Amino acid sequence: MSPEEQIIKIIKGEQRFIVTSHINPDGDSIGSILALGLALRKVGKEVTIFSFDPIPKVYNFLPRIDLITRDIPFSLPKVVIVLDCGEIDSMIPSLSKLITPSSIVINIDHHQGNSKFGDYCYLDPKAAAVGEQIYKIIGLLGIRIDKEIAPSLYVAILTDTGSFKFINTTADTFRIASSLVKSGANPALISQKVYENKPLGLVRLMGLALTTLKLNKKRELAYLTITQDMLKKSKINNPEVRVITDFIRSIQGLKVVLVFRETKGKEIKVSLRSKGEEIDVNRIASKFGGGGHQAAAGCTLKGPIEEMKMKVLEEVELQISTKLNAECGMRNAESNPHSAIRTPNSVGI
Amino acid sequence: MSPEEQIIKIIKGEQRFIVTSHINPDGDSIGSILALGLALRKVGKEVTIFSFDPIPKVYNFLPRIDLITRDIPFSLPKVVIVLDCGEIDSMIPSLSKLITPSSIVINIDHHQGNSKFGDYCYLDPKAAAVGEQIYKIIGLLGIRIDKEIAPSLYVAILTDTGSFKFINTTADTFRIASSLVKSGANPALISQKVYENKPLGLVRLMGLALTTLKLNKKRELAYLTITQDMLKKSKINNPEVRVITDFIRSIQGLKVVLVFRETKGKEIKVSLRSKGEEIDVNRIASKFGGGGHQAAAGCTLKGPIEEMKMKVLEEVELQISTKLNAECGMRNAESNPHSAIRTPNSVGI
Repeated sequence: MSPEEQIIKIIKGEQRFIVTSHINPDGDSIGSILALGLALRKVGKEVTIFSFDPIPKVYNFLPRIDLITRDIPFSLPKVVIVLDCGEIDSMIPSLSKLITPSSIVINIDHHQGNSKFGDYCYLDPKAAAVGEQIYKIIGLLGIRIDKEIAPSLYVAILTDTGSFKFINTTADTFRIASSLVKSGANPALISQKVYENKPLGLVRLMGLALTTLKLNKKRELAYLTITQDMLKKSKINNPEVRVITDFIRSIQGLKVVLVFRETKGKEIKVSLRSKGEEIDVNRIASKFGGGGHQAAAGCTLKGPIEEMKMKVLEEVELQISTKLNAECGMRNAESNPHSAIRTPNSVGI
Repeated sequence: MSPEEQIIKIIKGEQRFIVTSHINPDGDSIGSILALGLALRKVGKEVTIFSFDPIPKVYNFLPRIDLITRDIPFSLPKVVIVLDCGEIDSMIPSLSKLITPSSIVINIDHHQGNSKFGDYCYLDPKAAAVGEQIYKIIGLLGIRIDKEIAPSLYVAILTDTGSFKFINTTADTFRIASSLVKSGANPALISQKVYENKPLGLVRLMGLALTTLKLNKKRELAYLTITQDMLKKSKINNPEVRVITDFIRSIQGLKVVLVFRETKGKEIKVSLRSKGEEIDVNRIASKFGGGGHQAAAGCTLKGPIEEMKMKVLEEVELQISTKLNAECGMRNAESNPHSAIRTPNSVGI
């Protein structure tokens, strides 16, 4: 029996569920817990759709988003379904609050390095989003995807593929998107809600930050700095730096993008991005106690900002030259496309 | 017999073709002429794939892009297939150079207001891109879409839907995208080539232009100004203003975005964008001798820049208030989603 068939059997046999995901939930997490929760409710199951953290307002348009609760039920359901979570300790440290000794924990995820926690684990690193796996599960349960469920699954896939631009986008991704549109997901409306909702302050901040844009001689490395002064001027406390890094990354010819951000506590947060499989920024971030994925990582430093910048920039230059030297020696080496461009789900990247 | 069946009959019966599109060709035009040309060559036809204007370098990665020529053949083929062109006079003024008295002109297009020129016309305003129509035509011809043809059709659809974000994106769009990926189109690679290829100067210009960003009191209208001085500083002559307008449009709550750009000839080019069906910017541009689509239009003005700005801004404010007043009177009126968000194909928008 395949992992997904085992999970179907458990779901069919039980009545009460908690469906949850990692802290600071993203579009895939939110869309997936909501879609699975709604589907199970459609066939009479009792489902708590639970989030450890608040849901970003941008997803308020999703049908029945009000069902997502942050209240732990007084009587805990037996089955705990955890979605889009590769590693419990860092991504969902309070999971124990939802579990009793008799709990059945089901782990459904697409992170390559999933720790395979739980009693049942359906892991598919080829799925662009957990939303694709939930689409399959709902199908196997014989539940029809209606106009309430379809937008949530669409959001899951849309956000985790960066609107069908990341390397995880497959023929299957498009096949499922087509089916979701037939079931009532409106691509333009959802894209508008998700992507055309930037706070004014973020756009102003981008203008200020772009004035600090610098490139190295070979134009492979670009970096800019966000100061506390800029944040004050733009009237924004907690900027979505990802919007800025993504924009800079779109400059032609770049291999690596860095954004240095001063925090109130005089730390320096560094966001690192690379294009495709070129440079492993996770390796660079790890050297400074951070981490992430090959194409997106982050770290936090303490010390004088100019000195810290120099240290990180030197390390990036070293990685670029090492990579280039290695390429000369192994022209025909194949790379695994599925390990590259992925939007990270973890925090602080 | 349907228009597409009539066209299939002509294509099957003839041997020599010119396939072309409008001036300043965009991704849909380029992808569509290349895909149809390659498909016809596969079955032994003699095809000139012709462009009136140079092909933007960003599309250089497409297989066999070298086949696109700007040389008019000495002996003109009998069949001239014109793609993605709604109106000859403005979009393809030199078409007569390709036509003889015995020519058969085939018009394949998806513009709502297509003038239905030519001897045969296959018009489908519901197609997100002409690429979708060419996908159908190639299928009807019984030609297999291979890894040379698939990327071109994918580019056509990707660019005309803004990466599956515009209101023209349908279940069919995704079905076709899925099939093209199966045939060898690589979504991440193509997106990277098309979207992650911004000239450095454009990003620098964006930083400078964003410092001039202003909003009206109700935060429905945002505008900024690009001066000749900014263009000099950014070392860019002919900026893709669309990148800047699209970014500004993503600010939450906006109804209309305007970008004013000084030209060398002391004219002021105005780019207008609206979100969805909210405000018809085509109507505003038309008042100043310009035009375009409901969600994207442009016009060119002469006069002192501050005075011209005021005139346009007043007209926009008038349209917004008129629209709001009208809405109070007709709450239940339905709008046609297919007339809204479309990236314009015409020039200067």
